[in-house]
Amino acid sequence: MDDVRFAVLGTGGIGRRTLDVSRHKDGLTAVAACDRNGVAVDHGGLDVDELLEATEGNIASGPDDASGTTPATPTDDYASDGGAAAAASDGVKRHGEGAGVVASEQGEPTETPIDDVIAESDAIDAVLVALPNLEHDFIPRVAERFADAGYEGVLVDVLKRSRVIGMLDDREETLKESGITFVCGAGATPGFLTGAAALAAQSFVEVEEVEIWWGVGLKSGYEDNRGTVREDIAHLDGYDIETAREMSEDEIEALIDEHDGVLEFHDMEHADDVLLERAGICDADDVHVGGVLDVRSDEKPTTTTVSVTGTTFDGETGTNTFELDDATSMEANVNGPALGYLKAGVRNNRAGHYGVFGPADLMPGF
Amino acid sequence: MDDVRFAVLGTGGIGRRTLDVSRHKDGLTAVAACDRNGVAVDHGGLDVDELLEATEGNIASGPDDASGTTPATPTDDYASDGGAAAAASDGVKRHGEGAGVVASEQGEPTETPIDDVIAESDAIDAVLVALPNLEHDFIPRVAERFADAGYEGVLVDVLKRSRVIGMLDDREETLKESGITFVCGAGATPGFLTGAAALAAQSFVEVEEVEIWWGVGLKSGYEDNRGTVREDIAHLDGYDIETAREMSEDEIEALIDEHDGVLEFHDMEHADDVLLERAGICDADDVHVGGVLDVRSDEKPTTTTVSVTGTTFDGETGTNTFELDDATSMEANVNGPALGYLKAGVRNNRAGHYGVFGPADLMPGF
Repeated sequence: MDDVRFAVLGTGGIGRRTLDVSRHKDGLTAVAACDRNGVAVDHGGLDVDELLEATEGNIASGPDDASGTTPATPTDDYASDGGAAAAASDGVKRHGEGAGVVASEQGEPTETPIDDVIAESDAIDAVLVALPNLEHDFIPRVAERFADAGYEGVLVDVLKRSRVIGMLDDREETLKESGITFVCGAGATPGFLTGAAALAAQSFVEVEEVEIWWGVGLKSGYEDNRGTVREDIAHLDGYDIETAREMSEDEIEALIDEHDGVLEFHDMEHADDVLLERAGICDADDVHVGGVLDVRSDEKPTTTTVSVTGTTFDGETGTNTFELDDATSMEANVNGPALGYLKAGVRNNRAGHYGVFGPADLMPGF
Repeated sequence: MDDVRFAVLGTGGIGRRTLDVSRHKDGLTAVAACDRNGVAVDHGGLDVDELLEATEGNIASGPDDASGTTPATPTDDYASDGGAAAAASDGVKRHGEGAGVVASEQGEPTETPIDDVIAESDAIDAVLVALPNLEHDFIPRVAERFADAGYEGVLVDVLKRSRVIGMLDDREETLKESGITFVCGAGATPGFLTGAAALAAQSFVEVEEVEIWWGVGLKSGYEDNRGTVREDIAHLDGYDIETAREMSEDEIEALIDEHDGVLEFHDMEHADDVLLERAGICDADDVHVGGVLDVRSDEKPTTTTVSVTGTTFDGETGTNTFELDDATSMEANVNGPALGYLKAGVRNNRAGHYGVFGPADLMPGF
C-alpha cells in the first residue's frame, strides 16, 4: 500500500498519542491536526515531534480515551454548536488562548478548525476523529459535513456506545455517495478486542457468548481522563448519562471514595455487541462487556481478556481466549489498533468499498 | 459481499471438512470438487451432503491436515507428474477404482481432474488447493497452471513450509498478470495462529518474539493422518524430509513406540515466520513454532497458545496471548479459518489486489 496521509481532529489524549504511535509505523504521514482554536497543515508531513511538544499538557477532561470505557459526557462548556467547540478535546480552555495547536510553530489560529481540515481533504487519505462525541449524533454529523464537502477518503473514530453505530448507518447512503469509508469503534474496545473476538470465533460454527472484560489502572492518567471516568459512572447501577453529567466534581470524588477508587462495571453499553453482530459473528445479545477501573493505581486491577465460547463443526463446545499483558497500557491498546484499522480503511476505500465498517468487518472474511 | 462460488481440489481430510464447514457459513457455494479419478461440477451448487457421504472413508495417509504440522511427505506413489496423481489426497488407491468422487452421483471419471476444474474456472471465484504438496514446488506449479489458463480468481492453500512461500513469490508476476490472488498458509498454523499473532502484536511498536505452541491429540485421526505424522518426524532431531520419507511404516511405528506415542517438536520450519515478516509484524528469526503431538489420545497434550512479546510505545514490555480451548479440534481450527481467508481473498481479488498474500497480510492494515 502506498503512503497514507492522515489528519487528526482533536489533539487530546487519543489525537496526540496517535500522532506519537504513527512515528513507529511505516507508511503513515500526519499532514493535518486541529483543535478548538488552531489548525496545522503540511501536506509534506507535519513535524510531529514539534507539534507534540508544543501541545503537551493539552489533554482535557475529555472523552479521548478508549480504555473500554465510553466517550465522555460533555460538560456544558463543550456542548455547543459542534463546530469550533467540537475540537475542544485538547482542553485548551484550561491552558489559555495560546495553548493547543496554535502554540506550535506549525499552527494557525482558526475559528473553524474542522472546516479548515475539510478544505484540505482532497489531499488527505484518512481522518481520525478524536473529538469528544458531544452528543450521540455529533460524530455522525461531523461525518456528514465531510460528505457534504464531497470528501473521498476514510474517517475513523473510537466511538463506544452501541447506539451511535445505528446513527452512522442512517447516514450510510450519504457517506457512500461521497466515497467515504467510515470505520467506527476502532479503539481498544470496541476495536482491538472486537477484532480479537472475531478471530477467536473462527474455531466455531456457532458462537454462544462473547465476554469482554477489561482492566484499567488510571492513577497517573486520572487527571487527563476525568471525562471518561464521569462517563463510566453512567454505567454504574443507579446512574445514567444524564445523572452522571449533572454530578459535580465533588460528588464524583465522593463516589470514587465510596468505592475506594475501584469501580466495577457489568453489561456496559459497548458497541462491540452491534459490531460483532453486523460482521456475522454472533447475536448482539450474546456479547457482554464489563471491567474494572482503578483510579488510584497504575496497575491493572484485572487482566483484560476476551473469551469466546462456541460450538465447533464437530460438535464440541469450548472457549478461546485472548489476553493482554497487564503491562500494556490502555493507551497502547487503543492507538496501535486505531492506526491499523485506519490503514485497513484506506485499503478498502481505494478498493471502492464505501459506507460504514466496524473492526470485525475488516477482519479476514470471517 | 456477494455469494462466493468455490471449488476444492482434493477430497481428503481438508477438502471434505472444508465442504462440511462451508455448510455452516453464509455466502459460500461449493460448485466443484475433484480427486485423482473424478470430478464433480455443478455451477448451481453441489449437493454437499451427498458428495460427503459418497466419499466417506476417502481420507488417505495424505498431507491434507494443517494441525500445526507440515504437509505430508509424498510417498513414491504420489510423487508423479502432478497431474492426475496430484488429486490423490483422497486415497483412492486404497479403496479401489469406484471410490472417491466418482462414487458420488455427481462425479464423473476423469484422468485430468485439475484441468477439468480449470476448464470451469470462469465461473469459480475461489479454489481451495487441498492437495498434497508432492514436491515443494508442486502447489506453486498448480498455481501456474491456473495462471496459464488465464484464471481470474482466488487460490488458497494450507501450505506450511517456509520455503514454499518464496516459490510462490517467484511466480508472483505470472499470478498478477492472470488476475490471481493467492492466499498461502491459510490453515491453523500458519493461518489462524499467524493472524492471531498479527493481532496480538498491535499493543506493541516493536515485537521481540512470537511463540506458537500447538497441541494435537490424534488418536482417532491417526489412520487418516499418517502422512502428516511422517512429515512431523522430519522435524525431530536427527531426521529430515528425506530420512522421514524413506522410513517404512514399521520404522515409524517403532519410533512412535519409543516416544510412547507423544512427539514433541521445537523450532519447526513453519511458514508463520516468513508470513509474519512479510506483513511487517516482526523478523522471521523471532518466530518460533513447536508443539506436541499425541497419537494415542484425542486429548490435546498441551494447550495451543500464541504468545507475542513486544514493547509498547510508552516503553513497557509485555506478552499478549491467544489460547485455543483444548476442546477445539485441529480440524475445527483449520477449516473455519481457511474459509475465512478464502472469503478475504475474494474480497481482495474483486478489489483488484493480485499476487501472493499470507494470513497476516489480510488482517486489518496492521
